[in-house]
Amino acid sequence: MPSPIDFWFDYSSPYGYLASERIEAVAARHDRAVVWHPMLLGAVFKVTGERPLIDAPLKGEYSLMDIRRSAREHGIAFAMPELFPIGAVAASRATLWLRDHEDAARAARAVPLIHALYRAYWRDGRDISTPSSVLDIAADTGVERAELEAALGERSVKDALRAEVDSSIDRGVFGSPSFAVDGELFWGHDRLEMLERWLASGSW
Amino acid sequence: MPSPIDFWFDYSSPYGYLASERIEAVAARHDRAVVWHPMLLGAVFKVTGERPLIDAPLKGEYSLMDIRRSAREHGIAFAMPELFPIGAVAASRATLWLRDHEDAARAARAVPLIHALYRAYWRDGRDISTPSSVLDIAADTGVERAELEAALGERSVKDALRAEVDSSIDRGVFGSPSFAVDGELFWGHDRLEMLERWLASGSW
Repeated sequence: MPSPIDFWFDYSSPYGYLASERIEAVAARHDRAVVWHPMLLGAVFKVTGERPLIDAPLKGEYSLMDIRRSAREHGIAFAMPELFPIGAVAASRATLWLRDHEDAARAARAVPLIHALYRAYWRDGRDISTPSSVLDIAADTGVERAELEAALGERSVKDALRAEVDSSIDRGVFGSPSFAVDGELFWGHDRLEMLERWLASGSW
Repeated sequence: MPSPIDFWFDYSSPYGYLASERIEAVAARHDRAVVWHPMLLGAVFKVTGERPLIDAPLKGEYSLMDIRRSAREHGIAFAMPELFPIGAVAASRATLWLRDHEDAARAARAVPLIHALYRAYWRDGRDISTPSSVLDIAADTGVERAELEAALGERSVKDALRAEVDSSIDRGVFGSPSFAVDGELFWGHDRLEMLERWLASGSW
């Protein structure tokens, strides 16, 4: 199997949510796996000096319209949550702890948890910023609650998120969603088509 | 014929150049005309607080790579000019004066001038920021040099550019290139495909 698609996303990113609903089909069509990388745009913005998209004059209004339009085009259920943006630290730590778990059965629950968290927030308007909300949602996907609760307090799990965020910046990732395949970086939900053309043709 | 596609572009925008090489084919496939709107991102950035893309950490490096990759994908000759960004006031005034000329033969020279200016800068690396360079390039496309030189000094031509820029901001345009069709706004060279899908399907 060829090398996987790296997929970076912030739970607070609506375009990240849209891409999370589509990336597996793209990968499957080209015999690729997906490596899911939760990231924190807040940490990236400290490097880039950017600010949340929706706060920007003109661009923010356009983006809200465009996110809804993009969801409609791809048939993805979407509703702008009242609480926005939210902190994604707990959600991201839970995701990394599962993704990198040495027990394969637990590691296999990472992607279902990602979808459950993203949909809880961007489809159902639930707050996913608190540890207790993350624990509730994780428990619904079959993750053992007490075990995850303990993990969220562990230094190694906190360090893992810090390392993941640093590594995303080292890779040149500055926005959510971003994709990389065979060393080639693509930024933006609207670049999934370009990623597919790249996967199909090899290069230009 | 259905309503035209409005196309906003800044001569200083590499993605605007790429879109300028593709928009006519998109329009022709869907029986639409193109209305070409030169704009000044500098004026828009005063409203939005944005800054030139290429200056942004991480995003700037990505963009340079992505512009070259996008040009290769679409077979468009491109070379990053040494002088960047440039002022597009003279080029934009010349464009508007021709576009809105009451003499249809002169007005018909506007689109060839747009391509000549864009290619001079983004393909051939020529400075297109000075009135004399704009006059040289315009003369090469058959525009009467003395007549254009006089026009560039006219208050009505200066006012026309100011009005065009204000009007683009009123329409919610905040980036180059932008497209609008039937009231629907799209931003970015990478949204030409989405614009085409919109033109094909009517809406989502």
